[in-house]
Formats: sequence, C-alpha cells, structure tokens
Amino acid sequence: MYRPALVALAVLLCSSPFVHGGKVLVVPLDGSHWINMKVLVEELHSRGHTITVLRSSDSMYIKQESPYYESITMDSSAGFNKEIFGSFTTTMINMRRRGASLWSRISLEYEMGKQFSQMHKNQVEMVGEIFENTQLMQSLNDAKYDLVLTDPGLGGGVFLGHRLGLPLVFNVRWTVQGDGHDAIAPSPLSYVPISGTEMTDKMTFPQRVKNLLMYVLTRFLIWHITDSNYTPFVQRYFGNDVHYMELFQAADIWLMRNDFTFEFPRPTMPNIVYMSGFQCKPSKPLSKELEDFVQSSGEHGVIVMTLGTLVAALPEDITEDIAAAFAQLPQKVIWRHKGKRPSTLGNNTLLLDWLPQNDLLGHPKTKLFVAHGGTNGIQEAIYHGVPLVGLPLMFDQPDNFFRMKARGVAQVLDIATVNKDNFLEVLKEVLYDPTYREKMRVLSNLHRDQPMKPLDKAMFWIEFVMRNKGAAHLRTESYKMSKIQYHSIDVVAFLLAVMLLVLTVFLVAVKVIWKCLFSRSKVKSE
Amino acid sequence: MYRPALVALAVLLCSSPFVHGGKVLVVPLDGSHWINMKVLVEELHSRGHTITVLRSSDSMYIKQESPYYESITMDSSAGFNKEIFGSFTTTMINMRRRGASLWSRISLEYEMGKQFSQMHKNQVEMVGEIFENTQLMQSLNDAKYDLVLTDPGLGGGVFLGHRLGLPLVFNVRWTVQGDGHDAIAPSPLSYVPISGTEMTDKMTFPQRVKNLLMYVLTRFLIWHITDSNYTPFVQRYFGNDVHYMELFQAADIWLMRNDFTFEFPRPTMPNIVYMSGFQCKPSKPLSKELEDFVQSSGEHGVIVMTLGTLVAALPEDITEDIAAAFAQLPQKVIWRHKGKRPSTLGNNTLLLDWLPQNDLLGHPKTKLFVAHGGTNGIQEAIYHGVPLVGLPLMFDQPDNFFRMKARGVAQVLDIATVNKDNFLEVLKEVLYDPTYREKMRVLSNLHRDQPMKPLDKAMFWIEFVMRNKGAAHLRTESYKMSKIQYHSIDVVAFLLAVMLLVLTVFLVAVKVIWKCLFSRSKVKSE
Repeated sequence: MYRPALVALAVLLCSSPFVHGGKVLVVPLDGSHWINMKVLVEELHSRGHTITVLRSSDSMYIKQESPYYESITMDSSAGFNKEIFGSFTTTMINMRRRGASLWSRISLEYEMGKQFSQMHKNQVEMVGEIFENTQLMQSLNDAKYDLVLTDPGLGGGVFLGHRLGLPLVFNVRWTVQGDGHDAIAPSPLSYVPISGTEMTDKMTFPQRVKNLLMYVLTRFLIWHITDSNYTPFVQRYFGNDVHYMELFQAADIWLMRNDFTFEFPRPTMPNIVYMSGFQCKPSKPLSKELEDFVQSSGEHGVIVMTLGTLVAALPEDITEDIAAAFAQLPQKVIWRHKGKRPSTLGNNTLLLDWLPQNDLLGHPKTKLFVAHGGTNGIQEAIYHGVPLVGLPLMFDQPDNFFRMKARGVAQVLDIATVNKDNFLEVLKEVLYDPTYREKMRVLSNLHRDQPMKPLDKAMFWIEFVMRNKGAAHLRTESYKMSKIQYHSIDVVAFLLAVMLLVLTVFLVAVKVIWKCLFSRSKVKSE
Repeated sequence: MYRPALVALAVLLCSSPFVHGGKVLVVPLDGSHWINMKVLVEELHSRGHTITVLRSSDSMYIKQESPYYESITMDSSAGFNKEIFGSFTTTMINMRRRGASLWSRISLEYEMGKQFSQMHKNQVEMVGEIFENTQLMQSLNDAKYDLVLTDPGLGGGVFLGHRLGLPLVFNVRWTVQGDGHDAIAPSPLSYVPISGTEMTDKMTFPQRVKNLLMYVLTRFLIWHITDSNYTPFVQRYFGNDVHYMELFQAADIWLMRNDFTFEFPRPTMPNIVYMSGFQCKPSKPLSKELEDFVQSSGEHGVIVMTLGTLVAALPEDITEDIAAAFAQLPQKVIWRHKGKRPSTLGNNTLLLDWLPQNDLLGHPKTKLFVAHGGTNGIQEAIYHGVPLVGLPLMFDQPDNFFRMKARGVAQVLDIATVNKDNFLEVLKEVLYDPTYREKMRVLSNLHRDQPMKPLDKAMFWIEFVMRNKGAAHLRTESYKMSKIQYHSIDVVAFLLAVMLLVLTVFLVAVKVIWKCLFSRSKVKSE
C-alpha cells in the first residue's frame, strides 16, 4: 500500500502545481441547487481561493454574509420561492390523489412552466442590470477573477463569463437543454433515454418511438424557453448572429452531478467530469438521544424517511397510512415530518423536524431509506449502500427512482395510489429480500471505487482551469457548425447530387449510343 | 501541498482496495506494439500480479524467458517479420524518391496488405490450435486468470477472453476498425477526421466530403479484412449469428494510447481511459561520454534524430543530404544511424547504433527531435517538451505529424522531396523561431497536468476490472443493436409511414366530403 500512495504524493507534488489564491466568481442557482454549490464553495475556500457569490436580494437560501465567500447582492428577484414551489407540490399531490381532470393538471403544469420561465426572465433582467451598471462592471473586471463557476440551469453565469472574458466551469445536472449531456455529447436516441421517460438503455421498438417523440417535444420546449427569454438579450449584448446555445456550449469544464452507478452508460465528452457523490462524506456520530433511539432497534435496525425540502406537508390521509404501516414493523423509524402528528403513529416511530441525513444513512443500523428521489438523497443512499423505497413527487424524481429500480436497489410507489397496505408490502419486500441490500452494496462499492474522490476531482479540474486559463484542448468547437453541417447532411446531399449527375450523363450517353447503333442498323437493313 | 497528498493517501488506502496477486493473461501484438505492452507487464509485475504472455515461436521481440512473466509459446508464426516490414519501408522510400509508377506503388501496397492479412490469418490459426488443444484449454481454465489484457490490432486476445469467459482490457490505439475510438464511440464525420486524412477537427466542405468518402472506403476495407479472416472462425466457435465486432466491442476497458494533447477533442465513452505517455518517465543521467558530448554543445544545444525500429537504412542520397545539413549547424547532433557513414558528416554529428532516447529527450540541452512520427516518439517529445521535425514514412506517421504541425510544435518534410536545403531550412526554423518551443512547453504542461500519472491510471483500471470482475456499468451494449436500430432508422421510417397514412386518410376524407358537397350543389343547381 506504500507504493501507490507515494506515487500519488509525487504526482500531486510534481505534475499538478497546487494553485493558491485563485479568484472565483460563483453564479449559483437558488433552492436545493445551492446546497450542492455550497459544498464546492466551502471546499474552494478551504483550499485558499477567494470566492464571490452573486445573489438576489430575495434569496432565502443564499445568505449575504458567510465566512466562505463575499457576496454581490442584486436588487432583483431570483424568482425562486420555496413557498410557491412547495404549494405547487402540495396541489399536485392532492390532484393526483383525487384523480383531478386533465384540464386542471395541464393548467397546474402551465402555471409551473410560467414560474420557471419567470426565473429565466428574472435572471436575464439581473444580468442586464449588471451589464448596464458601468461601475459594477468595472469592479468585476478589476477583480481579475480566474473563472466563473455556475449552475447553468439558468443562463446568468454563462452571460457573465462571456462578458468578462473568463473561462466557464459548470456545476451541472439539468440545463435548459434537459440533461446536461444532451447539450454537448452525442446522445443516440436508440439507447440514450430522454430524461423523464423512465426507460433504460435497452428499449423496445415502441419505447424507441416514444423516446424520439419526447426528443422532438423537448427540443420544441427548449426552443420556446430560450427563444423567448434569451434571444433578445443575447442579440443585444453579444451580436445579432449569436445564439444562446453557442455561449452555453463553450463552457470549459462540465462538472456533472452524475456518474455511471446512476446514469446508464452513454457517450460523453473529454471536458465532462463526473462528480456524483461529491457532497457525500463519512457519517459522524449521532447525538446521544438519537444514538440511543437507533440502538434500541436491536437486530431489526432503523428506517429513515424524508421527502426533501419542498414538501411542506403531505395530505393527512397519506401520513395516516404511512404511520400505520410503520407501526406494524419491528424496526425503529426516524421520519422527518412537518405538519399534524398522525393519529396512527406507533411507538417505534420518531418524528423530527430535521434529521442528520448523512449521519443516519451511514449508521450501520440503517436498513432502508424512504425518499422522494432528489439526486442528492439518492447519491447519499448509493454512497452509504442503503436500499430505497421511493415516493417520487415531481421533476426528475420519478425518473431518478426508475433508474434505481432498474438496478434492483429500490421499489417505487405512486403517490396517487399509496396506502397502508401497499406501502407496508413494499417496505417488507425491500427489508427482507436480501438482494436489494446486496445489489446496493455492489453499487456502493462501484461508486467508491474511483481513482480519486469526486470532490477532489472537481477541485482538480477547477484549479486546472485556473492554471491553464481554460481547457481548450478538451473542448470541441463543433457546436459552431450548423445542424446541417454537424450531421453531414450537406455532404451527403452533394454526393447524392454528384451520383445523380453521373448516372444521368451515363444514361444519356447510353441512349445516344443506342440511338446511333439502332438508326445505323436500320439504315443498313433498309 | 500537505492536504491533497493526505487526501490522495486516504483515497488510495480506503476507497480503492489494492489488489494483490491478480493473474493476467496477456495476448500482445508483436513488433513495436510489444514495447508498449511490456511497460504494462513490468508494472503489473511490480505490483505483485502474475502475468502469462502468449507468444509465437518465431517472435523476435517477445522473449520466451523473462523475469516479469511466464510465457506460453505456440508453434505458429506471428506473421510479423521485422525484415519484411523493414524492406517494405525501404522499397517505399525508394519508390517515393524516384517517383515510381502508380502501378508499382499500388502493387507494393497490395503486398503489404497481404502481409497484414496474413498476420490476421496466423492469429486465427494460433487461437484455433489453442481451442482444439483440450489439455491447454484445461490448463488455461484451471489457471483462473482475472482478465485478458490484449492489443486488439489482431483478434487473438478477444477470442481467448470470450472463450475463457474472462473480462477484457484493451491496450489500444489501432484496431481492425481504424482508430480505437471508431469502434465504440460516436464519431461525427463533420468534425472527427478519419485517421490518415491529415485533417483537423475544423474541416472545409471539400475536406468533409473527403472525410465521408474515406470513411466509406475504410468501412469497406474493414469489412473485407474481418470478413475474410474472422467470420468463418467466429461462426465455428461462437455461433452462426455472432459477428466479430460484437465480441470485440464487448471489452470492459479500453486503455487508449492517446490523449487530447495529441488527439483533437471528440466524443468518447465511459470505459475509455486515456493513458497517452504511460511509457514516459523522467530522464536518467547519460553515460559519461554522451554527457560530455552533449555539454560540448554549449549554448547551442543538441539535436536528436532517430527514425524508429523499421528503417534499416535510409537511401544514401538522403543520408548524405541530412548529414550535410547537420554539418552547417552550430548545434551538436546525435543521430541513430545504421548503414554507411555519410561522407558529408560534420564534426558536430555523432552516429550511434542505439541511443537512450528518453534520457536524451529529457536532457535540458536538447533543442530539437528529428523523428519519423511513431506514436511512442511523439508522446515522449510531448512529455519532455521538445519540438519536432518530422520525416514520416508510412502507416499513421504522416497523420501523427500533421497533428503536431497543426499545434505549431513541429515542421514536416516529405521523404520524397527532402534534400539538404529544405532540411536545413526547416531545422533552422524550428530551432530559432521560439514559438515552437513555447507551444511545445504549453502542450507538455497540459499533458502532465492530470490528476494521476497515465501509468497509474492504467494500473488502477486494470485492477478495477480484477476487483469488480469487469466494468459492466461503464460499458454500453448498444453494439448489440443493428445499424438500422442504432441510428433509429426504423423509428423514423415508422413515424413517416404513420404521417403518410394520416395524410392519406385526411386527403381521402377531404375528397369524399368535397364530392358530396359538390354533387349536392350540382343537384341543387340543376
């Protein structure tokens, strides 16, 4: 074990000079995405870099004051409001429970779409204000940042990076293009399922038809969102012939919150760095009371349940059913629950307002994680090797859980039909069928079996961009081509035209020769 | 510097259990490819693994006895003969010098093609003998190898891996498919130049036409070689419905002798590991005599020249011109030269039968490397940051040098037209225009700026395959689809048919309604 460690030491000391005192301008997304970005910000800070975070004055998550960063606060709205999205979630759950009409579902989706569009609009306005503020732009230029680190779910960081002439590093899973890959890596529709379709990399013919149709629909939505929100802005500040996608695809490094214990194998690009699980860390000891509660589970172990940050409260009938199902199990349950205490709650269940998720998932007594399917939670479950029961609600959550189910490490329930009986059945299946735990252990081992910890990998590539002023040699510029050029359609059309021409000339020649021969023989025979 | 080293130590000690005592069956390619493979074999040995190498009894490069490996010697010909390929090279150079007729060139190419085809044939025969030798197969099975490590330029390792049910690791740059990427990664013809075309990732329209035509030609050659040499064998031993490509594309890890300081940016796959420069190492001190010679160059520095293993001797007129050009320079020259001593040789030029290439390239006095453009030499030049002058002869050499020229770190001469004057001119340009050295320094820094040394990376992934019995989660199985499925041609055809049907039904309906209305109005009007 001595040798490779020494080698690694040598590599780190010699080949990759450590960068001290880099300056990073961070343009984050609000909400749960900030939780991810904060991990990078804190790690960058601990490595001696200076970080400036751009935030909206109404941000609930991104604090103005922090020991890790300075902030620039813009007097504009982030458009991200926990209450609004929380109430959307509650309304959607209720609708799905009572089987609401298609019309009311579509109008809810439309309202949410409007809210998302508003976020894009707000972002563009905020950046516009910055661009117009000569003093602020001067100070941003004077600050001589090494790079812009941004979550490209919205375009603000992309615009700022280009305007300031700085390299761009993305902390990305979702973009206006759908999954981050779709923007820059070839994604053959025959084996790369479009996000949200809940299909694997092995599709039947009808599934492949669905995938192609979903692709077309997604492209249309993307075109609609970027066109209405970004095009006028891009044309104003970057030139009439520039398209948003061009600015977006020019990022140097894409730190992808993903890896192949989660994603199905698919093409990638040299400047994509997979850092799934970068936020995961070994568990710390629990508080005395929590540890006592966990230990009291004996051989049966513990179930941990949380449905993320957006669900203020589940409908009462569901919580009653969930509590009743838990009460029938010999396991102890720790449930992050807000709202009314269910009347069916058993003695084995502890309700908490907040729970130390990472420390609980890493506890050897934890047997099962009941979750809503946000990427963070699923990655932590993979990291700690805990099998899952899913109650996905919206966004990418059903698709995320579908991936886990396809790997045999999770069971999923529909929030529309979940009740005491089917919930209890699924809990028992994942608890008592050892294959779930075993497959999750294998997946966890694969996830951890990497040459470098994901967070160190992310840091390496951010510092790489600082050292080398970008990563031009890893970044294709094929996005500068038109679609017709990219797919060689012009070349194929040209070659077909040439073939047609040659064929025509040949046929005409044959005809002429034939005529000559024929008319001669006719003359002879006469 | 203390922290990241500690982190790396922790990663290596905890996350990636070191594998002791793995067993590797190596099926190498002969010739210069063995020089690469030997680096991996020796490193695997030093890490405590046991290696068995399969060799032909007539191999000139792969020795039967070695402290690093056991060998299994098959009484069959490798079909690789240094003399034959050496004489091909000499003949080709002479032909190009005297501007031989197209016919003699084509017939030489044809002879060489036959020789390559013979190598494939010999390989298949050797593996067939192994398969038929019950005792040998039994002992190979009993040996319980962890994996087969092979250079897939020929198919032997692929066949053995599948027959023994073992994971496959490729040490690869060229395959029967052309560049290793082409076999498994999407390679859009609009910006991925076909090997040998001497084009970059930014092509004009005529270049893109050329690229597509070259692609079609290459596919045809591939089909011809695999079909004639492999298909009967595959059908006999693996089933009638199995194609060689299917076995080939199923490899777990592709250790690519390449990276993006050499290759233009392009799509890749999760199971491709770039290990370009894995054979490079810091230079060791030179012998006393050589060091004295080098030091005697003073501020002018040294030029190193070698044209690889295949060129027995250059035509005399070229060596006379080269020597005369060198004689006019103030630099000292170390030239690996076989054959007659040129009469024009200057005092500044030292002829050697063999030279310590790596130690010379790493010497601070070395200013320039004159090379033929084999991948090994170019990678060593990049590693040590020495600019290049190229005299490419055949195979991938012109294309390799084209890449270096495109990066501004090399000048290239045509062996057909090289003479004293143009050689001297090019030498002076690369020696005295500082941009060559500066750009090579940047390229060298980029190449070295990786989280892990290439050889350590290669070892990590070989041991990963040992630990996890393959790398299924990184490997797409899309190759099992037909081309029609892979490119969604069936789906598009189906959707077009549906659209056509709908359109037809609509038009018929319109016609019927029109007729009804029209005949009624006719009736009325009557």
